[in-house]
Amino acid sequence: MTPVHSIQSSIVRKRDGGTLERAEIDAWVHGVVERNVPEYQSAALLMAIYLRGMSREETVALTEALLSSGRVIDWKGVGRPTVDKHSTGGVGDKVSIALAPWIASCGAIVPMLAGRGLGHTGGTLDKLEAIPGFRTRLSAAEFEAQVRRVGVAIAGQSDDLAPADGALYALRDATGTVESIPLIVSSIVSKKVASGASGIVYDVKCGAGAFMHTRESATTLARRLMDVTHAMGRKARALVTRMDQPIGAAIGNASETAEAIDVLRRRAPADLTALTRALGAAMLVMAGVARERHEAEARLDRALEMGEALRCAERFIQAQGGDPRVITDPSRMARAETETKVMAPRTGIVGALDGGALGRLLVAMGGGRRTKEDAVDASVGIRLLRKVGDPVAAGEAMAVIEAHRDAPDWAAVAASAYSIGDAPVEAPDLVLEDLTA
Amino acid sequence: MTPVHSIQSSIVRKRDGGTLERAEIDAWVHGVVERNVPEYQSAALLMAIYLRGMSREETVALTEALLSSGRVIDWKGVGRPTVDKHSTGGVGDKVSIALAPWIASCGAIVPMLAGRGLGHTGGTLDKLEAIPGFRTRLSAAEFEAQVRRVGVAIAGQSDDLAPADGALYALRDATGTVESIPLIVSSIVSKKVASGASGIVYDVKCGAGAFMHTRESATTLARRLMDVTHAMGRKARALVTRMDQPIGAAIGNASETAEAIDVLRRRAPADLTALTRALGAAMLVMAGVARERHEAEARLDRALEMGEALRCAERFIQAQGGDPRVITDPSRMARAETETKVMAPRTGIVGALDGGALGRLLVAMGGGRRTKEDAVDASVGIRLLRKVGDPVAAGEAMAVIEAHRDAPDWAAVAASAYSIGDAPVEAPDLVLEDLTA
Repeated sequence: MTPVHSIQSSIVRKRDGGTLERAEIDAWVHGVVERNVPEYQSAALLMAIYLRGMSREETVALTEALLSSGRVIDWKGVGRPTVDKHSTGGVGDKVSIALAPWIASCGAIVPMLAGRGLGHTGGTLDKLEAIPGFRTRLSAAEFEAQVRRVGVAIAGQSDDLAPADGALYALRDATGTVESIPLIVSSIVSKKVASGASGIVYDVKCGAGAFMHTRESATTLARRLMDVTHAMGRKARALVTRMDQPIGAAIGNASETAEAIDVLRRRAPADLTALTRALGAAMLVMAGVARERHEAEARLDRALEMGEALRCAERFIQAQGGDPRVITDPSRMARAETETKVMAPRTGIVGALDGGALGRLLVAMGGGRRTKEDAVDASVGIRLLRKVGDPVAAGEAMAVIEAHRDAPDWAAVAASAYSIGDAPVEAPDLVLEDLTA
Repeated sequence: MTPVHSIQSSIVRKRDGGTLERAEIDAWVHGVVERNVPEYQSAALLMAIYLRGMSREETVALTEALLSSGRVIDWKGVGRPTVDKHSTGGVGDKVSIALAPWIASCGAIVPMLAGRGLGHTGGTLDKLEAIPGFRTRLSAAEFEAQVRRVGVAIAGQSDDLAPADGALYALRDATGTVESIPLIVSSIVSKKVASGASGIVYDVKCGAGAFMHTRESATTLARRLMDVTHAMGRKARALVTRMDQPIGAAIGNASETAEAIDVLRRRAPADLTALTRALGAAMLVMAGVARERHEAEARLDRALEMGEALRCAERFIQAQGGDPRVITDPSRMARAETETKVMAPRTGIVGALDGGALGRLLVAMGGGRRTKEDAVDASVGIRLLRKVGDPVAAGEAMAVIEAHRDAPDWAAVAASAYSIGDAPVEAPDLVLEDLTA
């Protein structure tokens, strides 16, 4: 393909640390969609952006250009407030599966477009597909009809929403340019705004297992996400939450879906329930269903106690073709046949638990993807019996490997993800920052 | 095309400021030649190299990989020393056309592979093609036979020498990654070493019209060129020369070729003759034809006085199919029909003369290329009657536009390339540095 001279001058400007004009960004994104900018020019520009950064104004312009490359769903006339959530991702993060029907049961509308797992982090769509019959590929008409009828849908990104982002994301993935704040922000916000929610709550993960390792860098990302979302005319709020260990006790697609449903059955691990409830309260306040946090929490608690949230999850699963009996009988999802115990090598207290290592172990077990083309085995998983702060005794099981064979090798990998010390470890705060403006 | 995972890890390593292993560089260059590394991955890696740089060891490894992608011409048995020259390029630089036959007439062999013009700098091949019948596309067999018979040939790069460099250069040109020291050095040295000369003299330009603006940065480039050439087992020497104004008085392909021939006729502008002689002396010492500079200069001067250099040029032009009568009758080359005088707007002394502006004017006149596909009109040009340090009187002609129509607009552009002041301007030293080891 012939190189484009105007793009070349944009590449040179960004390479030299300059600022791109809105018209240059528009021309680039338009050229990506029309396929008249060669991928090698986009790749060079992406690397220059990665290394030189983008101003707030450039990031807003890029977000608008990505958004304008497709349609924006319009929920006017739906009669209830629309609200969405986005997490920057972590090992064991199955929050969306509990949160979306929970919020819908409280009277807000949740039109959620979600993603698949790649590398050591999982994806909501893969988890939901562990439910027999569950369809994550909905047409735009199906998605919109279900959201209006049930109040909630979770489906894959459709091709007509921010299509330029899809093309650029594939290039970023192949060229080492994923982890750039302006590229991350414009990608996330353009997709979320395209799905039409009037407000978005961001869960920005912070810690050893997350993209942002420090509270400061996570807060910077959170503020930029909010700022750009506001510039798109939507409400935004961000929680910076700890990601020093996996969320909940289940890692693996079927078991994570079962654990998410357990939130609504009031029998999930406390950290998972607390995170889901904190995000849910933020969403209900944003949607205007509650005036402030305590009222929102009371509304959420009532929806659990009354079974409204669970019934909404049942309707949601059934609407997308899934077998709703998984709610009371998770064994209807695929299950691994064998369990191998992960023994504690010494007596002490769990000081750290490396979620990244466990996420990579799940990939090695066939439960995640190395490349986009890989198939995923929903049945395999890792069950965490002990987490940070818990005491362990030598020879006691800390975790269980759920696989199709005895797996002492994988158990050894899982054991090495645990750091066991002698000092007591305080359970860390879950929500580090709550940014509302 | 499917992205390559190993290249992706090299991209990430270089992006983060790390050092590439020799095996990684080999894998990349091999993948470029075999076309199994997608261009978008190469583009991202090139931008990361541009912004992060490369160590000496990485540059040597890249040069070797580019060189190994093709064959290396072997001049064993030719019986005389082989020597070559490379210039980093400048407006009005027609040195090679005089230098190559001059050196050959002194007993060294000059197998010179040259390039075409792009943007504001011209190319030796375009200049030579102003000679009726002159062929710059020689087969490898023709090139080698002519060098052995005549002692000199100047032709286009053949596809089997450093082919990976050709592929990467096209990508660099489209992605704003040309002006990178490690990429420039590896590209130049791999091509020059592939053409088989046992030693190379580099003319590294320095000044407002050159890639390197300061003496320090030009010297850095010169040292890296020599260092990498030595690592390839060849002799190297570099002159850092001033490029604050065009070389000689002629800009435009036919008139530059005529002016180069004028060097051998002992009637060229002094700066052009002096630069050619300085580079020639370095080449003769390198080739062992002379022991030191003064002996080399004496040998060069004798070749001019005895007409040996001019006769060698005649044989060289004839061997490549060109009309040798251009040597005494340059009007046999294409000529523009009209001349438009460029008048001095005031009386004073020429303080600066912007070669880049004149080079771009030549492109606008059709005498250069905006893109590789453009045709070049050899007949148009700009003749400089006054240069830096010369006095001018208001209303006097400083230059002449040679075109196919009266061209007051182009004359105005040429006039604005002149800065005229009142202070006397010292003629600057031509050779700023002479690096021999």
